[in-house]
Amino acid sequence: MQLILLPDSEVTRRIEKVRGAMASAGLDAVLIADNANLYYLTGRVFAGYAYIPAKGDPLYFVRRPVRMEGCGVIPVRKPEQIAESVGADTPSSLGLELDTIPYSLVGRLSAIFTDTKIGNASSVMRQARAVKTPEELKKIETSGIRQTHVYSMIPSLFHEGMTDIELQIEIEKASRLEGCLGQFRIAGNSMELYMANLLSGDNADNPTPYDFAMGGEGLDPSLPVGCNGSVIRRGETVMADINGNFTGYMTDMTRTFRVGEISSLAETAHRCSIEICRRLETEGKSGAKASDLYEIAVDMARQAGLHDYFMGHRQKAGFIGHGVGIEINELPVIAPRSRDILAENNVIALEPKFVIPKIGAVGIENTYVVTTTGLRKLTLAPEELENLI
Amino acid sequence: MQLILLPDSEVTRRIEKVRGAMASAGLDAVLIADNANLYYLTGRVFAGYAYIPAKGDPLYFVRRPVRMEGCGVIPVRKPEQIAESVGADTPSSLGLELDTIPYSLVGRLSAIFTDTKIGNASSVMRQARAVKTPEELKKIETSGIRQTHVYSMIPSLFHEGMTDIELQIEIEKASRLEGCLGQFRIAGNSMELYMANLLSGDNADNPTPYDFAMGGEGLDPSLPVGCNGSVIRRGETVMADINGNFTGYMTDMTRTFRVGEISSLAETAHRCSIEICRRLETEGKSGAKASDLYEIAVDMARQAGLHDYFMGHRQKAGFIGHGVGIEINELPVIAPRSRDILAENNVIALEPKFVIPKIGAVGIENTYVVTTTGLRKLTLAPEELENLI
Repeated sequence: MQLILLPDSEVTRRIEKVRGAMASAGLDAVLIADNANLYYLTGRVFAGYAYIPAKGDPLYFVRRPVRMEGCGVIPVRKPEQIAESVGADTPSSLGLELDTIPYSLVGRLSAIFTDTKIGNASSVMRQARAVKTPEELKKIETSGIRQTHVYSMIPSLFHEGMTDIELQIEIEKASRLEGCLGQFRIAGNSMELYMANLLSGDNADNPTPYDFAMGGEGLDPSLPVGCNGSVIRRGETVMADINGNFTGYMTDMTRTFRVGEISSLAETAHRCSIEICRRLETEGKSGAKASDLYEIAVDMARQAGLHDYFMGHRQKAGFIGHGVGIEINELPVIAPRSRDILAENNVIALEPKFVIPKIGAVGIENTYVVTTTGLRKLTLAPEELENLI
Repeated sequence: MQLILLPDSEVTRRIEKVRGAMASAGLDAVLIADNANLYYLTGRVFAGYAYIPAKGDPLYFVRRPVRMEGCGVIPVRKPEQIAESVGADTPSSLGLELDTIPYSLVGRLSAIFTDTKIGNASSVMRQARAVKTPEELKKIETSGIRQTHVYSMIPSLFHEGMTDIELQIEIEKASRLEGCLGQFRIAGNSMELYMANLLSGDNADNPTPYDFAMGGEGLDPSLPVGCNGSVIRRGETVMADINGNFTGYMTDMTRTFRVGEISSLAETAHRCSIEICRRLETEGKSGAKASDLYEIAVDMARQAGLHDYFMGHRQKAGFIGHGVGIEINELPVIAPRSRDILAENNVIALEPKFVIPKIGAVGIENTYVVTTTGLRKLTLAPEELENLI
């Protein structure tokens, strides 16, 4: 079986992007071990390592699955065998994924390369992956279409008297039948989530330890985020932020539903979220500063008198958007101290949300492609508050 | 809100176990950042760090959620603030979780403690967590009861003509409604799984990159394990290995179903799996060598003429069992070169399985508590091949 599942031209394109970032970081080679990055380089998750030198052909050291074939593919049982193949061409500087792989593994891998200076391949790969190729955009667009279809079913899955988790389970099933892979990839260890963050009523105001925009108590202190089993009541909102991974690449979309009449404060805040998105869709051209987009959003919330509720109430998130792709927390980061500049074919999710005490969370989230003229939306479900009853 | 959700006596018991392992490793203190270990120490996942000195009171540095209270709880925004609190009591040796937390974080944390020798807290915590407390055993037993109930529903969820993933989605829903948290915690980066590994027919013989006992092609090369969308056919088996996390602590159970008549080879192999479990249930006393249990299982499979199919066919797994608790890959490891000795109140899963080409996977997996007289079973679904049609 061929290891590499991407067309040759696509492999070349991605490796060129990685090499560009390697050059800026002054690295002669990178040795990649993280699943998300291996998937990026080959179109397949495998157990092993990809070695990308600045010059010369990449090597793929594969531990599992067995019997992988292709140019540069070398079966190994342990990383120490890498030394034999790289041999005399030892790089003078080598990037390892210092931000994601464990300390012990870095030690073991760097010991293979004596007299080699170790640098950080995490930032190299983040940089390369931030600008998507047309092939990647196609996968993200497909996820957006399928996720939109799942969201259109949500009102039909609700009945009065349901708990939040009962509704979430119905949505999970609809989403899985639509082809959702379930897996929710996040770089680093700071976040964990199972399939969806569905928040109804005051549970939205429960703080979470994780670095998500919204919180929720969760069903158990071992996974403290999202649904807490409360009955969905009239006068409350239901915010649905459901896994959009249908292709290995995700879209991230949030929509809010209304159970009967809700307060005008909540209605106003939801409208403000839509307006922030509209404004950022024109401001978010390639070349725009991510921190400026953040400030525009915060200002609009403040102008509307909604600052106390913006991005959380008892606990606030420190960003309004983030890059999306293979993982949910890619570059650029739309946050106050971000130094990121938007580039054409970045894919970002914007999620200007509000938590209104006693009512619930309101607002929307969309995934966009950055273009030279603004943001192109990939998550096309209707944005207005929809009635569940 | 109180940070610590465990009874005082339980906190003391767990910290004493950690201190025992620290003493063996020659560590004056450990600084813990990993979610699974924080949950072990406090009964809650939080963003931050637990500092356990060999002598004196533990400190809990909490970044999120906000407003946590309790003895030793100190709110921080960044790890550098830890220095102020530990101050003059700087340990001469400090354990960090070198096997699980990223290299960059280890660098940042070790920089706080100048003149301190850094050791490995991963092995300390693995050791401490391997022997379960009565409180932990209660949670694991509860998961076993609820998982057993879910398994009893599987035949009623099947209908002829279904694909593997359609059946899996029905089981996922039943399991979630029974209270399954979904989250599947695995130490390290080598494995990823969404909720279940359901294998029907020849898909069981597709190798996976992950270090699971069984494989499967998966629905997408970004998550290459488990169901591949094939129709479940007569003459094949369906092996169900479904997430058993109902309490923050998991049980691990596998059962196999038969679709109409299957070959006598497959029937014989299934029977052999049950016999291996019966034998190991009496051999698996505290004091037993994990590697001996492995050898007994391999010998029994060989004696039965089934060696070619044992623990996989095209690709084989290198173990027949593993510790279970908060994570799915705890100590002890039941593998040929394991040096682990079984101890009372270890919790282990044994999974002597076979892959029979063209028929599918057969065999069972159970989770057990190690006692002085053998293994006590916690996963009580019937073990014989059950008919789906």
